[in-house]
Amino acid sequence: MNESTDLHGWQKRKRPLCLERRFEFESYSATRDFLDRLGDHCEAVKRFPDMNFGRTYVNITLRPEDDGDSAELGELDYQFALEINGFFD
Amino acid sequence: MNESTDLHGWQKRKRPLCLERRFEFESYSATRDFLDRLGDHCEAVKRFPDMNFGRTYVNITLRPEDDGDSAELGELDYQFALEINGFFD
Repeated sequence: MNESTDLHGWQKRKRPLCLERRFEFESYSATRDFLDRLGDHCEAVKRFPDMNFGRTYVNITLRPEDDGDSAELGELDYQFALEINGFFD
Repeated sequence: MNESTDLHGWQKRKRPLCLERRFEFESYSATRDFLDRLGDHCEAVKRFPDMNFGRTYVNITLRPEDDGDSAELGELDYQFALEINGFFD
C-alpha cells in the first residue's frame, strides 16, 4: 500500500499529517473484541495510535512512525494500517 | 454530586452538553486496565460514553442519559461520572 494506490479504507489527512479510518460494528461486544485484539497488537509492536470509540464504532488516527518535524507517512505506517485492517473481519 | 458543587475532576461543556474528564496513566498497561474495567461496567449498565485514548490517557465524554432535544445533565449522569472516577485508583 502506498500513496499512489488504494488506501484500503484509510484516508490521508494533513495538519496534522495522518491516516484515519472509521470502523463500524454491530454491537458493543464486537467493538470491544476489535479493541482487545488491536490492543494486544499495539502492545506487541509498541505502537499506540489515537483511538476514539463509542458503542459501535472505532476511529483510528495514525500519525507518522517517525514523528520529527518533517515527518512523512512511510511504508511502516501503511503497513501498520493494513495490519489494523486485518483485525476487522 | 450536582452542578452547584465540585464536579470531582469533570468539566461541564455546552454544545453539545456533556461532562468531560481526562484521565492520565503511567503506562499503556495501566491505561488498558482502566479501559477494561470501565468497559465491563459500561456493558453491565448498558451505557456507552464516547472515549478517546492513546498510550497513556483516556478522555471521556458523557452526554445526558436522556438524549432528547431538551436533554439536561441529571443525577444519573453525575452518578455515572462518579462511578467512572471509581475505576481510576
